[in-house]
Amino acid sequence: MTARPTAHELIAKHRPTLDQALEAIRTRAYWSPHPEHPKAYGEHGSLDAGAGKAAFDALLGTRLDLDQPGTDDWVGDEVSPYGIELGVSYPHADLDVLLPAMRAGQAAWRDAGPETRAAVCLEILKRISDRTHEFAHAVMHTSGQAFMMAFQAGGPHAQDRGLEAVAYAYAEQTRTPETAEWSKPQGKRNPLTLTKSFTPVPRGIALMIGCNTFPTWNGYPGLFASLATGNAVLVKPHPRAVLPLALTVQVAREVLAEAGFDPNLVALAAERAGEGIAKTLATRPEIRIIDYTGSTAFGDWLEANARQAQVYTEKAGVNTVIVQSTDDYQGMLANLAFSLSLYSGQMCTTPQNLLIPREGISTNEGHKSFDEVTGDLARAVDGLLGDDARANALLGAIVNPDVKARLEAAADLGEVALASREIPNPDFPDAVVRTPVIVKLDAAKPDDEAAYLGECFGPVSFAVAVDSVTDAVDLLRRTIREQGAMTVGAHTIDPEVARAVEEVCLEEPAQLSLNLTGGVYVNQTAAFSDFHGSGGNPAANAALTDGAYVANRFRVVEVRKEA
Amino acid sequence: MTARPTAHELIAKHRPTLDQALEAIRTRAYWSPHPEHPKAYGEHGSLDAGAGKAAFDALLGTRLDLDQPGTDDWVGDEVSPYGIELGVSYPHADLDVLLPAMRAGQAAWRDAGPETRAAVCLEILKRISDRTHEFAHAVMHTSGQAFMMAFQAGGPHAQDRGLEAVAYAYAEQTRTPETAEWSKPQGKRNPLTLTKSFTPVPRGIALMIGCNTFPTWNGYPGLFASLATGNAVLVKPHPRAVLPLALTVQVAREVLAEAGFDPNLVALAAERAGEGIAKTLATRPEIRIIDYTGSTAFGDWLEANARQAQVYTEKAGVNTVIVQSTDDYQGMLANLAFSLSLYSGQMCTTPQNLLIPREGISTNEGHKSFDEVTGDLARAVDGLLGDDARANALLGAIVNPDVKARLEAAADLGEVALASREIPNPDFPDAVVRTPVIVKLDAAKPDDEAAYLGECFGPVSFAVAVDSVTDAVDLLRRTIREQGAMTVGAHTIDPEVARAVEEVCLEEPAQLSLNLTGGVYVNQTAAFSDFHGSGGNPAANAALTDGAYVANRFRVVEVRKEA
Repeated sequence: MTARPTAHELIAKHRPTLDQALEAIRTRAYWSPHPEHPKAYGEHGSLDAGAGKAAFDALLGTRLDLDQPGTDDWVGDEVSPYGIELGVSYPHADLDVLLPAMRAGQAAWRDAGPETRAAVCLEILKRISDRTHEFAHAVMHTSGQAFMMAFQAGGPHAQDRGLEAVAYAYAEQTRTPETAEWSKPQGKRNPLTLTKSFTPVPRGIALMIGCNTFPTWNGYPGLFASLATGNAVLVKPHPRAVLPLALTVQVAREVLAEAGFDPNLVALAAERAGEGIAKTLATRPEIRIIDYTGSTAFGDWLEANARQAQVYTEKAGVNTVIVQSTDDYQGMLANLAFSLSLYSGQMCTTPQNLLIPREGISTNEGHKSFDEVTGDLARAVDGLLGDDARANALLGAIVNPDVKARLEAAADLGEVALASREIPNPDFPDAVVRTPVIVKLDAAKPDDEAAYLGECFGPVSFAVAVDSVTDAVDLLRRTIREQGAMTVGAHTIDPEVARAVEEVCLEEPAQLSLNLTGGVYVNQTAAFSDFHGSGGNPAANAALTDGAYVANRFRVVEVRKEA
Repeated sequence: MTARPTAHELIAKHRPTLDQALEAIRTRAYWSPHPEHPKAYGEHGSLDAGAGKAAFDALLGTRLDLDQPGTDDWVGDEVSPYGIELGVSYPHADLDVLLPAMRAGQAAWRDAGPETRAAVCLEILKRISDRTHEFAHAVMHTSGQAFMMAFQAGGPHAQDRGLEAVAYAYAEQTRTPETAEWSKPQGKRNPLTLTKSFTPVPRGIALMIGCNTFPTWNGYPGLFASLATGNAVLVKPHPRAVLPLALTVQVAREVLAEAGFDPNLVALAAERAGEGIAKTLATRPEIRIIDYTGSTAFGDWLEANARQAQVYTEKAGVNTVIVQSTDDYQGMLANLAFSLSLYSGQMCTTPQNLLIPREGISTNEGHKSFDEVTGDLARAVDGLLGDDARANALLGAIVNPDVKARLEAAADLGEVALASREIPNPDFPDAVVRTPVIVKLDAAKPDDEAAYLGECFGPVSFAVAVDSVTDAVDLLRRTIREQGAMTVGAHTIDPEVARAVEEVCLEEPAQLSLNLTGGVYVNQTAAFSDFHGSGGNPAANAALTDGAYVANRFRVVEVRKEA
């Protein structure tokens, strides 16, 4: 058993990590305290592969009792994209009991101050990190990610993003000192003197609405940013991806209680099938902050209707890669093939539209026509996914029937450059595993516009022929402005083209990766260094993580009196 | 003539001031580079009293040509609350010409970077500071403030708030480095390496909607926060208070042009009488940031309708002072009397509701009944304003007929503890100068609630009898939560009462001044140290100035490529 840690002990334990995180967000050099390799776990209290798998298996078919006030029912019907029924049930909340209970502990959490809150958050993340193998299975069997991706993106990378949010929250709250002595000269008279105190105070209860595909990675920034700034946090998971966030809530409640705080500062709001609890929650007056990842329609609804709250949304977008020229044709093809294949394109950062001049591109292997480029890319994807084991490890499973339906419909949108095919999964015969489809479209054909100027979430890419690179840049601008984009890529050895693409990304604003041909992909970002989204185009109104993401989750109250 | 300064020269000139401002917002100790005393001006290129007055006089009856594109008319019909017709006309804009022109220079302004932008903003503030005497008359004859207040609040204090915003903007933009080298170890393989650049980019054109009472003080934070973060700024002054902001725009355009930037980065949008241009402007797609000070109705309209923009509003509120006990009864009375009288109570920070236990309060002069406290406060106000010259210097003029009508109606709301009286102004016979009215109300009478639970902007205060200090604290909480508050005051020597009031202010959130009996008043805040508003209650959704006020006025665009 862990002895109950005092705030002082938690600060002593975690302050070095916090300081490293603060330095990393300042330099934006590479840093992570969370190992990516599965074999790095198993010592110092962390679960190794076998123990993590056993812990996950032990959860199946159980009731996850979080000991929450106002639990009026037990709900949950998750079915893994790999075919397993999880059979885990979760507390369903009577909001009129749960929400007041969540507020009860806020004054003590506020009074604890930014450093103690950060230390408690880091202890939560440490305990989650120790259970990374267990979480990996939970993420895999809710998102459909392949195991290694679920392990890395759902484990250390998500924990990194959570820690990054804690670091920003701590930095932001400590920009103003706790106290100040103010003395204003008055010529020959005595100065005016005041003693002032400054206290960061929470806005209220924060609501974090989780998504299906990246429950922890997309959920942790908002959860930890709100908690670290003194707010209670209600976690509303996607009904298909409850387990990873329910475990997160469990750990948070355990750590809060051990540290002497009210565990109800973090709670779960699971829902019955079809209940649609998010709208009810989002407009409750107690909810003052909302973090949401999901559809544009509901994100827009939140922004318009949850007017009592600060609303941070990540919505749909259309990601573009302009392909104009390269001095590493094979590297470019391999890099793009990987980007299109990873997690079956079910990332908000996966490229969708590849804009390629119809007269072709210049490469280190000579001129390549539009058809050669698309054919070579199709072969690169085929080569990457030729081995079924490797294909399964890269693709994961299709997360839900909507994605499968979109994939199947995509082949009718234009000439198919690469057909999608089924990959059998020997371990999970019910898993729906599909390779990406690449469809040729033409920017000169008005009928094609509806396809490439809308998000087609899933393993669907469009190779769009454009008349010129100028047209490509114009289409990029229009796409970002109208549809939003989480990522932009470009392959060009022409500095003027690079400059034109960069200018669009600066003006619209969007995050740009140029000429990636190695082991970094446009759809991946690293916490502490890369921003996820710009917060300046329709795909997301916030970036992970910057000052703006944390600064308005709390307010500073000043009390002044004569010295 | 000023030689055209290079960016480098401006940085060299202003970097020490910027560094001092950055240090001040970190320590929140007293600091200001802008002298408060009128006699401090007249050397080093600044206008002295006579030259400032002459410059103002020379403006009267003229056309203030700002050389703006798209000027299709000349408008302006300002009449001073002191009775003078200003007769100044201003450019009226064809928005379809002006707004595109304002965007033309944004890329160069963005590329100049945060330090150059800060230096240019500081040069603008320096030139405004040099003309403080001229601005003082412009503020006086639009707001109705007495000269000394117009000089100080409209001059150095406003300039301080502008500089504070520049410092926050600079700090926020430079939290992320311009470039980073990222190298991720890959075990025995070569590390993954990327070169990254990070560029703060503007959101677009910012709209600053000025107010009647503090055109510069309330206008400069938003104007300079937006400009320093790379946005163009369109200034829409209140039709009764155009001149101070038109002069500000004039100076900004002059400095921008001299420094090699497009002067159209700052422009004026004056309007015809009754034109109501603010709604049109606020919903233009080019407008991406709005700062507004004024009525709750229009502030709420902006928040609901200007969905394409970040909206920062300061609206109506009801400021409370709880009077429970004091060890300096005379000091308390004098301090409150001054707070109620300054600028005829026409400050968003002036106390409105004085909550006093009906059984009275304990003081260093013994127990004082409710009626004794209100009677003594009335006498303190009378004493303060007994001399007409002093009264004129404190009260200024009633800014507009609405305030006068509210003042006249207030006497019918309850028993009058202090009647308002007219003060003649020998210099300006047409000025409407009035002393404050204090009306007794009773929290136990439901009919009184409508009066004290709504903002009665102007020289009107309510002495509200409450059953107990607990009731006072409860009413304070309700008032802040429902009506908002820019300031809260309390007089108590009981630590438990102080703690209860503080807890309400932490929870609701509001800024609290405790036991002020000397030369600092609840309605005054000092830039670099005090926050103006909390941004956490209905009176304002932002505080002047904190990280949240600047962090979302720009976005950071990352461009990454393989190293």
